[in-house]
Amino acid sequence: MSLNDETLEELKSELLGELNKEKPNKALIAERLADIRSADIGEVVEELIEDDEELPAALAILDILSTERAANVLGYLPRESQLEVVGELSDTQVLKLLEEMGSDERADLFNLLGEDRREALLRRMAHQEREDLKRLASYEEGTAGAIMTSDYVAIPSGMTVSQAMMRVRQTAPDAETVYQLYVLDGDGQLIGTMSLRQLMVARPRALVDDIMIKDVISAPVDEEQEDVARTVARYDLLALPVLDADGRMVGIVTHDDAMDVAESEATEDIHKGMSIGQLEDGVSRVSLWNLYRKRVTWLVLLVFANLFSGAGIAYFEDTIAAQVALVFFLPLLIGSGGNAGAQAATLMVRGMATGDIGVKDWSKMLGRELLVAGSLGITMAIAVAPIGVFRGGEAVAIIVALSMVTIVLFGSMIGMCLPFVLERFKVDPATASAPLVTTLIDASGVLIYFTIATAILANG
Amino acid sequence: MSLNDETLEELKSELLGELNKEKPNKALIAERLADIRSADIGEVVEELIEDDEELPAALAILDILSTERAANVLGYLPRESQLEVVGELSDTQVLKLLEEMGSDERADLFNLLGEDRREALLRRMAHQEREDLKRLASYEEGTAGAIMTSDYVAIPSGMTVSQAMMRVRQTAPDAETVYQLYVLDGDGQLIGTMSLRQLMVARPRALVDDIMIKDVISAPVDEEQEDVARTVARYDLLALPVLDADGRMVGIVTHDDAMDVAESEATEDIHKGMSIGQLEDGVSRVSLWNLYRKRVTWLVLLVFANLFSGAGIAYFEDTIAAQVALVFFLPLLIGSGGNAGAQAATLMVRGMATGDIGVKDWSKMLGRELLVAGSLGITMAIAVAPIGVFRGGEAVAIIVALSMVTIVLFGSMIGMCLPFVLERFKVDPATASAPLVTTLIDASGVLIYFTIATAILANG
Repeated sequence: MSLNDETLEELKSELLGELNKEKPNKALIAERLADIRSADIGEVVEELIEDDEELPAALAILDILSTERAANVLGYLPRESQLEVVGELSDTQVLKLLEEMGSDERADLFNLLGEDRREALLRRMAHQEREDLKRLASYEEGTAGAIMTSDYVAIPSGMTVSQAMMRVRQTAPDAETVYQLYVLDGDGQLIGTMSLRQLMVARPRALVDDIMIKDVISAPVDEEQEDVARTVARYDLLALPVLDADGRMVGIVTHDDAMDVAESEATEDIHKGMSIGQLEDGVSRVSLWNLYRKRVTWLVLLVFANLFSGAGIAYFEDTIAAQVALVFFLPLLIGSGGNAGAQAATLMVRGMATGDIGVKDWSKMLGRELLVAGSLGITMAIAVAPIGVFRGGEAVAIIVALSMVTIVLFGSMIGMCLPFVLERFKVDPATASAPLVTTLIDASGVLIYFTIATAILANG
Repeated sequence: MSLNDETLEELKSELLGELNKEKPNKALIAERLADIRSADIGEVVEELIEDDEELPAALAILDILSTERAANVLGYLPRESQLEVVGELSDTQVLKLLEEMGSDERADLFNLLGEDRREALLRRMAHQEREDLKRLASYEEGTAGAIMTSDYVAIPSGMTVSQAMMRVRQTAPDAETVYQLYVLDGDGQLIGTMSLRQLMVARPRALVDDIMIKDVISAPVDEEQEDVARTVARYDLLALPVLDADGRMVGIVTHDDAMDVAESEATEDIHKGMSIGQLEDGVSRVSLWNLYRKRVTWLVLLVFANLFSGAGIAYFEDTIAAQVALVFFLPLLIGSGGNAGAQAATLMVRGMATGDIGVKDWSKMLGRELLVAGSLGITMAIAVAPIGVFRGGEAVAIIVALSMVTIVLFGSMIGMCLPFVLERFKVDPATASAPLVTTLIDASGVLIYFTIATAILANG
């Protein structure tokens, strides 16, 4: 059973109740936690840490768990909380925890620490361990190197199936996954891969070189994590091997880490769609200053962009004065154009992000959007025309209906094309956010509406 | 190596070149395809199918592949294309393909077929196979049942480790994954699970009942696929067992299927954020009629909602006439409020979708948003005030600055609270889309702006 919020809440108060006693029964707590999954304990510990007064309780729980378990739980905490916990521990305790963590999580945690602390910890590590950690910690965030683990099963070329099987059994306790095996030559180059399933059904005396798949899907160590996740999803991989610039294997990205990346990339895209920059943490935990900064930039920029709409209105003051009923329809017309345009932009941006469409599909998409947006504009014009007659008579109805079709069509074109233009100029297409597209369309909408109005009223 | 677009394009023209010869060399094509992954062949075949004239080439390629390979490739095609292919094949050919497909993909394809075809195919299947297919095909779309496969490794309770290992070897060719094993009692109830890794390091004569994990994470067969994917991600599972109402095990959802679900749910959420309904296929393939319908509903509804903004403007005609410079700032003020509000709504909706925040976090989020939105409003007011002085003098500057703070704050509150209100009334919080929030804020923005203006001008 996975635990729901209520059960977690109960567990938390139960633990707090025991821990707040004068002499907490640690054995009782250990027993209670034995059957709870690390992810769930992590959730409880995280809530305790967020509530500043309960940090000691969180530390007490981690202390009661075995080091291995505590390291697991720590891995489920957000970075800020990991840092709070580690800040309260001695170097010896941190070293023990680091030792039990997966190599990728170890490097992540290590990167959070201050320079002094890092040096102190490194000094106390064995040479091999130190080099491995320094290497993993050195990869740039957001790349394959930063999310990979070096705990994979490497099989030296030339081994027999039964030797390889022995190697799997030996490595089993430490490896992140034993279900995908990687065959390396003497130089550390990745020359093939096989699944444990293949190994199990092969003749024990066969050579791994004869049964391995030679055409391995891999990623360079500096590939963007978004692309890594997409490759894992596309080929249904358990793990994706990562190679350095010389083709030597340096790690794997496992399916669960790829899934986490895909989720956080989706969140980033969704936020970007509203002109929100990349947050350092979940919206409930990120600092208010970070939240403010990531929202304010575009909001202020768009304030100035919106001046164009205002200038447009000022320019047509005479037309407005001649027929005040026109103002009544202004929000409706530019709002509709903005909505249709934002829809078109969003469809393109997401299509590009999932690989459904690429730059080469531009003309096909343009044709489709012309048809759909045209139909949308006509439908909305029909909806709004009767109100035009009612508010301002026939001339106004014609102006409003014509403007609706034109603005929706034009707005949709802007929304559809902008992501392609950005992509063409190597800017992230997701920059074509709803607020940006809407603001652009607002300004053009004002011009279109009043130009049509001036023309028709002059002839009327 | 994974293939990029260019390489795929090359492969396609190479294949077409050979297939368009009078006597295509099938052996040559088979050899060329031997090293290409099914996902990549799927991409090429899909492009051929999309281009109506090349359907015969697509069929020829599938025909050249072994049935097993062809079934794999078919599994990578979008539904519409699967249907086109199957429409060209005889019942015998379809039966062969179905046999080689995974049970989940088989059921999906089966569900696409017309009633007559389904009956014809069912008649020619063995009893066991027929029942299995009918059962899998009967689960409602979007639930655990619809995405699970019944090809998992079941271990009867009471087996020894070495017996279980034998069972794994026997089932290996057919099972979707052999790396997670499920222990069932005589009644088909799931009583435990273990990984192949655990099995490999256990004593051969130990009983599986003694080494299995009894507290299994599982999902009911009618659980929403979104929640299934979230459980797989949260607990880093290779596969999640699915149980029927009586607790009997009926299938597993594998990590790769969960990742596909997570991606399509993210797409759905992103589209919903722009008031676009759930599309039946990718944006490049979905029918224009579907695209039109999924966009038009809210667009037309919002046309009418926007009438309130117009009515607000009409109501304040006297104020506007007295100080025409005010109209200049209207788009800017309501636009800014809309943008800030859409940001707030998006942050909440995504936070809820990832489980980062729940209804219980409402008051905490309200406090945070008050602070952040207040700061945003003040910053934007400072940005716009000088322009107010320039365009209309001090009074206008004060009106515009005050309105900016109020509208941004009020808009952000609407945007932040709406998802919680919807969730409270069991409506999908994602309904609080950018267009809806923006439209609501437009109307309130007009009222706030002109109310403040009327008050200040009356006293001026």
